Amino acid sequence: MERKGKVISMELKIGDQFISYKHVTEQDVKLFADISGDHNPLHMDAEFASTSMFKQRIVHGMLIASLISTALASMPGTIILTHIGMTFEKPVYIGDNLIAKVTVKKIEDSKVYLDAEVTRDTDRVLSGNVKILKR
Amino acid sequence: MERKGKVISMELKIGDQFISYKHVTEQDVKLFADISGDHNPLHMDAEFASTSMFKQRIVHGMLIASLISTALASMPGTIILTHIGMTFEKPVYIGDNLIAKVTVKKIEDSKVYLDAEVTRDTDRVLSGNVKILKR
Repeated sequence: MERKGKVISMELKIGDQFISYKHVTEQDVKLFADISGDHNPLHMDAEFASTSMFKQRIVHGMLIASLISTALASMPGTIILTHIGMTFEKPVYIGDNLIAKVTVKKIEDSKVYLDAEVTRDTDRVLSGNVKILKR
Repeated sequence: MERKGKVISMELKIGDQFISYKHVTEQDVKLFADISGDHNPLHMDAEFASTSMFKQRIVHGMLIASLISTALASMPGTIILTHIGMTFEKPVYIGDNLIAKVTVKKIEDSKVYLDAEVTRDTDRVLSGNVKILKR
């Protein structure tokens, strides 16, 4: 039987999906820069960013990526991220509403492989794949 | 001529290295959880984490990974992260001192490929590779 929506069992199946949402604020970008130390002017300096190919400040890629691990954290049981590969396909701007989605592709004992993506409306901004340990 | 240490030219060469440092505090982990929404109890709940394989709270993988983009941000010119692949090899704990290092491996016009690693003392905790656009 196909399973959709919220998973209430602890058991994981191929095709299970987990989601996180985020409205990205200027405060998020400022705090992320403080934590990471990444003060790249493309993220922090509106005047500099206005002269770039993006014409405005863009959000740190790793902040976007963190939504993937947030989606993983909503899985049942204890999740340990062991590998992630990601392509940043489009820039993300302050004020964007993002949805991160992970989909279970393969299960080998405690190892689980998932596809990952982050979208803004109908645009995919990040695609990737993840390997986790599930306990 | 081999180049070491701080790069003061805007020109990039194979073997150039860029570094970032981070002492991870409890406040960093709390703020990262707030920004990302990732409140996985392995990161947030000391009592729960004490029963895990790690015996204590571990730091969000994406917070560790953010040090890679911080090292990239120290490169000359404008850097845009387009791809990253990472393996989380060892857990990182609150209080750890981390060094992220990226090394230029290949340059194809504006595309630059780098190896990346994060170490704690002599332990490598993260290894990976990165592709960026340099403008």
